Amino acid sequence: MTTISINTGRREEFVDITARVQEAVQASGCRHGVCHVICPHTTAGVTVNENADPDVVHDILLSLGEIVKELRGFRHSEGNSTAHVKSTLVGTHVCLPIVEGRVALGTWQGIYLCEFDGPRRRQVRIVCVSAGKEA
Amino acid sequence: MTTISINTGRREEFVDITARVQEAVQASGCRHGVCHVICPHTTAGVTVNENADPDVVHDILLSLGEIVKELRGFRHSEGNSTAHVKSTLVGTHVCLPIVEGRVALGTWQGIYLCEFDGPRRRQVRIVCVSAGKEA
Amino acid sequence: MTTISINTGRREEFVDITARVQEAVQASGCRHGVCHVICPHTTAGVTVNENADPDVVHDILLSLGEIVKELRGFRHSEGNSTAHVKSTLVGTHVCLPIVEGRVALGTWQGIYLCEFDGPRRRQVRIVCVSAGKEA
Repeated sequence: MTTISINTGRREEFVDITARVQEAVQASGCRHGVCHVICPHTTAGVTVNENADPDVVHDILLSLGEIVKELRGFRHSEGNSTAHVKSTLVGTHVCLPIVEGRVALGTWQGIYLCEFDGPRRRQVRIVCVSAGKEA
Repeated sequence: MTTISINTGRREEFVDITARVQEAVQASGCRHGVCHVICPHTTAGVTVNENADPDVVHDILLSLGEIVKELRGFRHSEGNSTAHVKSTLVGTHVCLPIVEGRVALGTWQGIYLCEFDGPRRRQVRIVCVSAGKEA
Repeated sequence: MTTISINTGRREEFVDITARVQEAVQASGCRHGVCHVICPHTTAGVTVNENADPDVVHDILLSLGEIVKELRGFRHSEGNSTAHVKSTLVGTHVCLPIVEGRVALGTWQGIYLCEFDGPRRRQVRIVCVSAGKEA
């Protein structure tokens, strides 16, 4: 398992960690298999989405803000319940194929740490599992 | 890794790919372990849900349409921001157990490619990872 | 693969299954790798979120109730379409690292079975896949 650290700079943002995941996969020596990208936090997440046009990430964050509203009935005293909800909706892990020593992403895909309660120092854990080339 | 191709026929639809995933698992020769079903697109996803009553898929798509609304603040010029949001909410991968050479699904479960910006030609990648029977 | 059974007690609740997943991982003998926690149901899910303050789970369930509304257009006759939608949004599996024979969770993380259409007897499947310590 490799752990990478990321300093987020705002309350909410998506940080592109694709290059750092690629480095971890190369360092692991895994040639074919699956790369697990796992976030050990409860007010952040990880997702795969477009990394060509940064407006896409803007629109996803805007949409999540409309979907997950502050509610009068919230009880958690830290005031970050919407961040916990977004973490569960977006999820805290992604799985990606490893092909010939690299994470195989779609043309437009990048891997993002999703910060919902920053700025903070965050970690992401990466585990590579080998499988046969034909598996 | 096996790649399957699917032609979707509408803007939004769920295509049942259970049989094709089963074929890929059998072809892989994996007897026990985990099957990863991974979508390399940013305006589509994969999910597991009921495949007995097609009304369930209808209702999920209807609900997603209510949850993820077009917003004035969207910036992405392609006009498909809601599809990107749905992709991140539904997710682009599922993991399922492989038992005795087959994907072990619950009684009512099927595996779906979720099209949110079709019609298009889509791909799904399948990676099988072996584990001991008792693992 | 290990299967655990959980009796849920309400229409909607999150049941902390962290201890039972830890037991299954220890029994598997896996030292380093990935633990897959998979729910074979279509009106339930699994997630990882805070297990220190139970108010967080309360707030997540409250929020999901606001996000996924009953709609006039629902067709599924069993009346549990919102549970199917929540299952797809929250997801039916999580992946976690195994380090030195234990699931490596973040400080505040617990693993939950998410019941959206209970009370029922539910199952969760656990598969452990080994990887090298440095993978």
